[in-house]
Amino acid sequence: MLQVPSTRPALIALLTDFGLGDSVGVMKGVIARISPFAHCLDLSHEIAPQQVSSGAWILATNYRYFPEGTIFVCVVDPGVGSSRRPIAISAGSWFFVGPDNGLFSYILAEQPVHEAVALTNPAYHLSPLSTTFHGRDLFSPVAAHLSLGTIPFSALGESLPIEALQRLPNLVPQRQGNQIAASIVHVDHFGNLITSIPLSLIPDWLTVPRVRLRFPDSKRELSERRRFFAQEGQLVETGQPFLFPDSSDYLAIAVRNGNAAQTLRVNAGSSLIFELFQE
Amino acid sequence: MLQVPSTRPALIALLTDFGLGDSVGVMKGVIARISPFAHCLDLSHEIAPQQVSSGAWILATNYRYFPEGTIFVCVVDPGVGSSRRPIAISAGSWFFVGPDNGLFSYILAEQPVHEAVALTNPAYHLSPLSTTFHGRDLFSPVAAHLSLGTIPFSALGESLPIEALQRLPNLVPQRQGNQIAASIVHVDHFGNLITSIPLSLIPDWLTVPRVRLRFPDSKRELSERRRFFAQEGQLVETGQPFLFPDSSDYLAIAVRNGNAAQTLRVNAGSSLIFELFQE
Amino acid sequence: MLQVPSTRPALIALLTDFGLGDSVGVMKGVIARISPFAHCLDLSHEIAPQQVSSGAWILATNYRYFPEGTIFVCVVDPGVGSSRRPIAISAGSWFFVGPDNGLFSYILAEQPVHEAVALTNPAYHLSPLSTTFHGRDLFSPVAAHLSLGTIPFSALGESLPIEALQRLPNLVPQRQGNQIAASIVHVDHFGNLITSIPLSLIPDWLTVPRVRLRFPDSKRELSERRRFFAQEGQLVETGQPFLFPDSSDYLAIAVRNGNAAQTLRVNAGSSLIFELFQE
Repeated sequence: MLQVPSTRPALIALLTDFGLGDSVGVMKGVIARISPFAHCLDLSHEIAPQQVSSGAWILATNYRYFPEGTIFVCVVDPGVGSSRRPIAISAGSWFFVGPDNGLFSYILAEQPVHEAVALTNPAYHLSPLSTTFHGRDLFSPVAAHLSLGTIPFSALGESLPIEALQRLPNLVPQRQGNQIAASIVHVDHFGNLITSIPLSLIPDWLTVPRVRLRFPDSKRELSERRRFFAQEGQLVETGQPFLFPDSSDYLAIAVRNGNAAQTLRVNAGSSLIFELFQE
Repeated sequence: MLQVPSTRPALIALLTDFGLGDSVGVMKGVIARISPFAHCLDLSHEIAPQQVSSGAWILATNYRYFPEGTIFVCVVDPGVGSSRRPIAISAGSWFFVGPDNGLFSYILAEQPVHEAVALTNPAYHLSPLSTTFHGRDLFSPVAAHLSLGTIPFSALGESLPIEALQRLPNLVPQRQGNQIAASIVHVDHFGNLITSIPLSLIPDWLTVPRVRLRFPDSKRELSERRRFFAQEGQLVETGQPFLFPDSSDYLAIAVRNGNAAQTLRVNAGSSLIFELFQE
Repeated sequence: MLQVPSTRPALIALLTDFGLGDSVGVMKGVIARISPFAHCLDLSHEIAPQQVSSGAWILATNYRYFPEGTIFVCVVDPGVGSSRRPIAISAGSWFFVGPDNGLFSYILAEQPVHEAVALTNPAYHLSPLSTTFHGRDLFSPVAAHLSLGTIPFSALGESLPIEALQRLPNLVPQRQGNQIAASIVHVDHFGNLITSIPLSLIPDWLTVPRVRLRFPDSKRELSERRRFFAQEGQLVETGQPFLFPDSSDYLAIAVRNGNAAQTLRVNAGSSLIFELFQE
């Protein structure tokens, strides 16, 4: 069974759409009260508000860089207070705690799942439990108790069949011949747009004669592509959008000396069509 | 006498209006130099600039979630460099360090105060002491020395009578029959507006036939109310403002799929009138 | 030889222009995996995008406040993926890791440099190494390995002659009689503008009959000056820009109850002329 390692400080990584106000601060206070030697670390709190798919993707592209036994507390939770289930999952070498709304879709697709539980045991929640802030009252205390390494995973609540866990639809886009229907999964700090298309799906994207990416909603499109973000001797014009491979090996869009999200009027969640032309 | 616990790492929680630039970073550097085993934790650095009342409220709704012995360094300090006193307070199970400008008003109202000192002992300040950045030069080093657990609280400076400490006026609004004059104490990351009205003052807010909250300055008002933020089967229209109980049991205002602060053109500090109608 | 201290947790301070999204979070994950007992601390992630000179100045005004042996990971890196060298420097009582693009100019000018290396040893990088995210794949793992205290500095790569390291031009402005050509090195959270002029260069700035600071590009100028930010009995009018000594002893510009950057339409990097008039 996967265990929290005892030879290093327990690590709890936080991922939310809360921004960096007091919501995240008080979660760390709750954790420190229960598990004083745990280290808390912010993965990101800048997920676009309530964009579960964006949170899922940020988790997917980063979790492998964290130590074995890291406990991820993930709260992008538009359904807080409704009947959506709070869950914990032990998968691969890590633990994941959060709402059962698809946030862990990539984890479920990529890692062997050892165990999943609905967080129904109130002994590991704060009391009273608010209806609006499960990050503080439920997910953080569960992660903190887990980090102590003194309770079995199954003590957190009722065991869940892995098939019962929520998954996002269209997680990995399909290539239909030379066309792929996909979406924007993330807008980074510089306004670069990351698509849901892994480069493994389009090994020929740099070698076919021509490509086109278009946004049906905003009617914008682009065709420029670069092997690197700053390909020497091959810079595009200032203000011009171009395709490049992002640091997680997904197809992405930037504007040289500019902000692609603003230039193209596109947000996290926007639909797109990518086409490869063989002539 | 309250002591910094020695069986766990000392915890220093930071609350400022500095944002997350280098001001907060260098405070942590100062603390690490003096107290290498202390853990620093950000409660929030997003207090509206120089809004002492908003900082006081954020502290009030969060401090109880932190471990006993936590040292709160609070710097919302429009008077830095003037004659306002730097102070430290030992109250309840916690320590509080910051300017004597009302930031600790709720603490003084809610907790037994064991001791208060003016931070007049330069042995625990950096030298030279700047006139503009006491967060770095005075409050952080005082908290760091305190966290070592090796000096008595009274070594930090001159003892102060508790009555001499500054308190904000109108901290807890009064109910005059069915009317309450109050204000907005905080605007959260999503633009939700938190009022200064604790729900304990209005146990009947959901049961009276009608309520109204109005902002005299912007002439806006609202009457919709919900038992939960996302009350199932009872969603308000998109764009419509409504009252709900926030996660700290204060009356709050949200706009479904929107930003209440922008919709209502209201800021932290805005005055409001809340009325309960018995028919 | 300077060593990472073994009597306290190793401290790694991060300075980037990444904002607080997942880029910084994953760097901390990488560090935790290699060096589980190191403490990471954010100096700032709000450097204006790709403004190397602004990052250099923020580092310069803060590093002395950190404990001996602190490892600074600094990533303001417009040339990532190009031929710019990744380096590490041991200087004064600290270590510095980042791109060789001038980011360490003030350190090189102010501190004795013990050793400098090009980070050419792939044993201390992640593999594969991306072309766009050396913060995660190269600088963080190098800092983490260094923090373990188990490898000599020289193991990180090829020794570099100190003269070969990049320096920013015009780092410290020159006073030509009563005139100084300088620039804005930083815009703080409140919109205050910090100039590149150390007060040590203008000991007479408060005593000469008159001074003037003008921005050739925006045609704006100002002459008001104050000994302290909030000089009692000497407040300037609301909306009026004035000169004051910032907390790092550089000449700075504020607007009372306002935002100097917006009022004067000035950014990090803007050129300015400061003049002292003897009559």
